[in-house]
Amino acid sequence: MAQVYFGTKADGRAVFDYYFRNNPFNSGYSIFAGLEDVLKILETLKFSSSDLDYLEQHGFKPDFLDYLKDFQFRGNIYSSQEGDVVFPNRPILQVEANIIEAQIIETLLLNILNFQTLIATKASRIRRSAEKEILLDMGLRRAHATGGYYASRAAAIGGFDSTSNVMAAEDYGIPSSGTMAHSFIQSYEDELQAFRDFAQWRPKNCVLLVDTYSTLKSGLPNAITVAKEMESRGEQLLGVRLDSGDLAYLSKKTRVMLDDANLSYVKIVASNQLDEFVIRSLKEQGAPIDIFGVGTNLVTGKPDAALDGVYKLSEFNGDPRIKLSENIIKVSLPYKKQVYRMLDKNDMFYGADAVVLYNEEHVAEMVHPFDITKSLDLNRFKHEALLQKVMENGKKISPSRSVTEIAAYSKSRLQKLPEEYKRFQNPHIYKIGLSNKLKQDRDALILKYKF
Amino acid sequence: MAQVYFGTKADGRAVFDYYFRNNPFNSGYSIFAGLEDVLKILETLKFSSSDLDYLEQHGFKPDFLDYLKDFQFRGNIYSSQEGDVVFPNRPILQVEANIIEAQIIETLLLNILNFQTLIATKASRIRRSAEKEILLDMGLRRAHATGGYYASRAAAIGGFDSTSNVMAAEDYGIPSSGTMAHSFIQSYEDELQAFRDFAQWRPKNCVLLVDTYSTLKSGLPNAITVAKEMESRGEQLLGVRLDSGDLAYLSKKTRVMLDDANLSYVKIVASNQLDEFVIRSLKEQGAPIDIFGVGTNLVTGKPDAALDGVYKLSEFNGDPRIKLSENIIKVSLPYKKQVYRMLDKNDMFYGADAVVLYNEEHVAEMVHPFDITKSLDLNRFKHEALLQKVMENGKKISPSRSVTEIAAYSKSRLQKLPEEYKRFQNPHIYKIGLSNKLKQDRDALILKYKF
Repeated sequence: MAQVYFGTKADGRAVFDYYFRNNPFNSGYSIFAGLEDVLKILETLKFSSSDLDYLEQHGFKPDFLDYLKDFQFRGNIYSSQEGDVVFPNRPILQVEANIIEAQIIETLLLNILNFQTLIATKASRIRRSAEKEILLDMGLRRAHATGGYYASRAAAIGGFDSTSNVMAAEDYGIPSSGTMAHSFIQSYEDELQAFRDFAQWRPKNCVLLVDTYSTLKSGLPNAITVAKEMESRGEQLLGVRLDSGDLAYLSKKTRVMLDDANLSYVKIVASNQLDEFVIRSLKEQGAPIDIFGVGTNLVTGKPDAALDGVYKLSEFNGDPRIKLSENIIKVSLPYKKQVYRMLDKNDMFYGADAVVLYNEEHVAEMVHPFDITKSLDLNRFKHEALLQKVMENGKKISPSRSVTEIAAYSKSRLQKLPEEYKRFQNPHIYKIGLSNKLKQDRDALILKYKF
Repeated sequence: MAQVYFGTKADGRAVFDYYFRNNPFNSGYSIFAGLEDVLKILETLKFSSSDLDYLEQHGFKPDFLDYLKDFQFRGNIYSSQEGDVVFPNRPILQVEANIIEAQIIETLLLNILNFQTLIATKASRIRRSAEKEILLDMGLRRAHATGGYYASRAAAIGGFDSTSNVMAAEDYGIPSSGTMAHSFIQSYEDELQAFRDFAQWRPKNCVLLVDTYSTLKSGLPNAITVAKEMESRGEQLLGVRLDSGDLAYLSKKTRVMLDDANLSYVKIVASNQLDEFVIRSLKEQGAPIDIFGVGTNLVTGKPDAALDGVYKLSEFNGDPRIKLSENIIKVSLPYKKQVYRMLDKNDMFYGADAVVLYNEEHVAEMVHPFDITKSLDLNRFKHEALLQKVMENGKKISPSRSVTEIAAYSKSRLQKLPEEYKRFQNPHIYKIGLSNKLKQDRDALILKYKF
């Protein structure tokens, strides 16, 4: 495609919209993530000489290969802020660039934003279930190869406190943590000696895994022995980890045994196929778990495993563009756009984002994309413009933000979203409307291209 | 854990088993993938000075950091061949190494093997549905970040013909292919001109996407016009792609329209949320589709999204090790082991793998792991030893195989597996048994460690 553009419309100027059609996990919202990674890569994206050799062998033409040799992304990007609460069927990010450049970055951009947004959303739901308790990402062993690195980043944005993925922790400044594996205990003739050695060598943040042989009859009594020995050295055992069996039952028994031994400061860590629903159930049962270790279901975004984000052409050389569909809901929106979020008197999100033409001045009303009986008077709201220019002529112009900063921003944004959008069962549907002008222009294009 | 081992048993020698507990997708088998990548990485695995700085800041001790500075994996690996048909609850791969080294590689090994085995298995199922038709991987935009690179490799092993992931194609020698996006057509005022330009610039393997406005009223008539123009230049249109709507209905209409225009050589490509079940349904309806483009469901291993592979200590300094569980099926197997696959007179797989102690000579019988009423006389079978030494003292000793070779091997192995194990609905359960000696040793250990 890029080569054809090079040959036929090398100076074409395009606007592409990135958006998704459905929140994952039947969630009422999603958490936008991946932007900093995208911008960083776009600033340095190049074709290597071996890439060019490969493309030459596969029939690409010399003048196009020359173009690729000097390839640099020089476009503009307008985006929602990373960590913001976002919704389906409105632009999350827009690329305004030469059409060849905009085309070449499509898969890169979709790949990064779809995945990190998926995982940040999953993490946000798990954070909601876990309330104030500590959340540890421990999914790398089941993650999708090197994609696990980005899963850990997105998990932190969605509200996880730490990760067992040390490389992601190092690069993204996420706290790292972990516990022992069963094999550590198995490598010893007896469990007590394994615990003693571990506590001696890693007294700080020491968590003992207590279910290798029998949680209540062996693991926990041995852990209590070691905790007392640590006390005598002026140290404190951080916690014990339950990794199998009925976590509600075992955590209650464990809490009583620890408290009876005057070890009320020792925390209970739980793991084993946790997700937002299991954690909520544990909380409802009053399971006294202080730290949840979540792995597979987090880092794979199970069961959805993908966000259905797309990248659609909305403007070319100043003219509007549209993609029709047999399913009216999948028709794209033409032109470069802006999105306004409505705020109520208390600065809470009212529950409506209005998609408007980029340069529309006063938008007094938003209308439903398809249902002509529905509209909303916007005069009574304050509003925020959600799409900000973050890259200009290929250079990042937005201030760089750490994962910690993005996570804090995300948390503050989620606090502005009313509860009914955050519940797991049939969440309230956040309204996405169009300005009258955008709707008229879109409808005219639909009629122009319909058959 | 590694630091504690370094301080307490730095010379310990361990055997770890890699295995999984359930076939993904309710499949009757899995396809083992990722081995070549694991071996390649293990040969060169190192800690960088910035890694060591990070670990130092996080409290690791100077003598252990010195150890890590010179870290090299020097162990042995015994493995099933990559591409082989494998089953749950028997060792797929064993690591025999210094315990520190064996521990440090755990997550790396699980991460690579779990994911590639998941995707190769999914690909194998899709291959089965698609029968002889061409399968194209086009999932990168929804893959888990950089994990998509490995997904494309595993898809080829499982039976896909080509990938749209050009980097994976380049590095792994997989054929690359792809088609245009809707945006290409949208960038033109009219569809016909878009098709003309594309065909002129990319006449070889040209596939035109026909559903941007209306498949039957616009896309297909325009594609036929361009196909005729190509004929007049001595070229041939490879195909048209359907990406929405009822693919069974549209493909039949499309075939008739193409044939009526004397374009019987033009192929029909279909895409849009395909998986093994949708493709089977299309085949059952007689949809004349020649090429299936599969994306999200393939590269994310939907809906399972993960293989539940684990890495369990089975031997330490020559002594057997076991991990108990409240669920008897999750009890691990002690000692270094071998796995024999039983073959019938026609060299087809009989449907039984026997797990035995590594040095057991003659194994006349295999017994069910838990059900004492079940056993199988092995004297009547030929057998193959499945675990071969592929790495010795940290050096790969198995011949390197390309993805193409691995895919061919996988196909030949799958042909030996009887049909009843390959069906989608309630596949026959492949038997995994133990030698009497292994079972006795395991049971003695269970009794030793039980509470």
